[in-house]
Amino acid sequence: MQLLLGSGGFRTPDRLALLTGQMKAFFGEIDEVLFVPYALKDHDRYLEAMTARGLHAGFSLKGIHREANPARAVGEARAIYVGGGNTFRLINALHELDLLDVIRYRVAAGMPYMGVSAGTNAACPTMATTNDMPIVYPPAFRALGLVPFQVNAHYYSGATFVRAGDGYQEHFGETRDDRIREFHEMNETPVIGLREGGIIRVEEDEYSLIGAGARVFVKGSDPVDVGPGGRLWPPPQGVR
Amino acid sequence: MQLLLGSGGFRTPDRLALLTGQMKAFFGEIDEVLFVPYALKDHDRYLEAMTARGLHAGFSLKGIHREANPARAVGEARAIYVGGGNTFRLINALHELDLLDVIRYRVAAGMPYMGVSAGTNAACPTMATTNDMPIVYPPAFRALGLVPFQVNAHYYSGATFVRAGDGYQEHFGETRDDRIREFHEMNETPVIGLREGGIIRVEEDEYSLIGAGARVFVKGSDPVDVGPGGRLWPPPQGVR
Repeated sequence: MQLLLGSGGFRTPDRLALLTGQMKAFFGEIDEVLFVPYALKDHDRYLEAMTARGLHAGFSLKGIHREANPARAVGEARAIYVGGGNTFRLINALHELDLLDVIRYRVAAGMPYMGVSAGTNAACPTMATTNDMPIVYPPAFRALGLVPFQVNAHYYSGATFVRAGDGYQEHFGETRDDRIREFHEMNETPVIGLREGGIIRVEEDEYSLIGAGARVFVKGSDPVDVGPGGRLWPPPQGVR
Repeated sequence: MQLLLGSGGFRTPDRLALLTGQMKAFFGEIDEVLFVPYALKDHDRYLEAMTARGLHAGFSLKGIHREANPARAVGEARAIYVGGGNTFRLINALHELDLLDVIRYRVAAGMPYMGVSAGTNAACPTMATTNDMPIVYPPAFRALGLVPFQVNAHYYSGATFVRAGDGYQEHFGETRDDRIREFHEMNETPVIGLREGGIIRVEEDEYSLIGAGARVFVKGSDPVDVGPGGRLWPPPQGVR
């Protein structure tokens, strides 16, 4: 399998350059990539913005939403790129359009799959480690299962803060580590907390971490921090 | 209907004093309150912590999880308090134990209902404006519908920041306003973004905002900020 899974937050020039450089290496000679914009509401505008903002890395993006038969478009694509947005909306669309099996089949047969943020969540066994608001009720949380772990995109450690006057005030909602701990109260699958600007490149059984660090959470063990270039999978063992 | 709906973040002495003071006025002469701990995993520990941390405001809390027949316990309770935690886990339990109708019926008949964070989400028409991670797939997102609006608990405006060395670094995930806008791309119900430390007190058709401000989002209008004591419902009209 050939996967390129981005966390999100590719909003600085350095991060954008890293992402587009990785895309060029990943898609290589492929000239046209099937783009899946279902995580946002306005598909046409999303497709246009991808090119306008340079997020296409020079590749021609073909919008699946313009295809009369989206499943056939997946069947005929040379590569696929699932964009970010709201994961509930994305997974709902993939179920409603019956696209999960055909994507899984094509990726297993070698078609390169790229995802960012919600598109990375979609590559996991389920969408249960998304950060998004449940704005629509999907038929299931089951996702593509292209990797044997869950990814928590836009991962950060510690508390968050919001601006208050000239300073910052702590926000008391659950931290991301709290949320992942709660996930492991109800589920077994290891979770990779992928910091913004980070990318996981998968080539068959090789899992490479690029651009930013990650924290790997295995149920029953202490989480382990991994830096770019470090071993991501099988998961490093924490003590407990 | 008698409702006391807290946002969350009652972690400072001032906020805690405000909350417990409101509870004393709200529950009044009632000596025992049925506590619903399903949003957390360890129900016994949750119940003990409520009293240990003073969050019981002196009232005797009876844990619904220790009742052989939870629906009957709701039927016989003089007041109910639904605690915070993970909203998916809470709503899943309310559906599985078939408690939604009996709670709705008792509250309509005058039983005081208090909720904090996930317990406030549960009072809304659906759980679709929660901030929580979808760690379990509930049979539906439908909730109690005790109020005609959605509440987004732990609301904040603007970007979030995380610590980076001695300073702060912006986090690029969707802001809360982005998420509520996405909710309104798929849903019609107005949303009250309730800041941490804030409480909504409902007495029949009177909706009072206490302790912190809120931002009211009506689909198709600009959001409107409301301060403590201000009019929350019917929603103030923004321009657009």
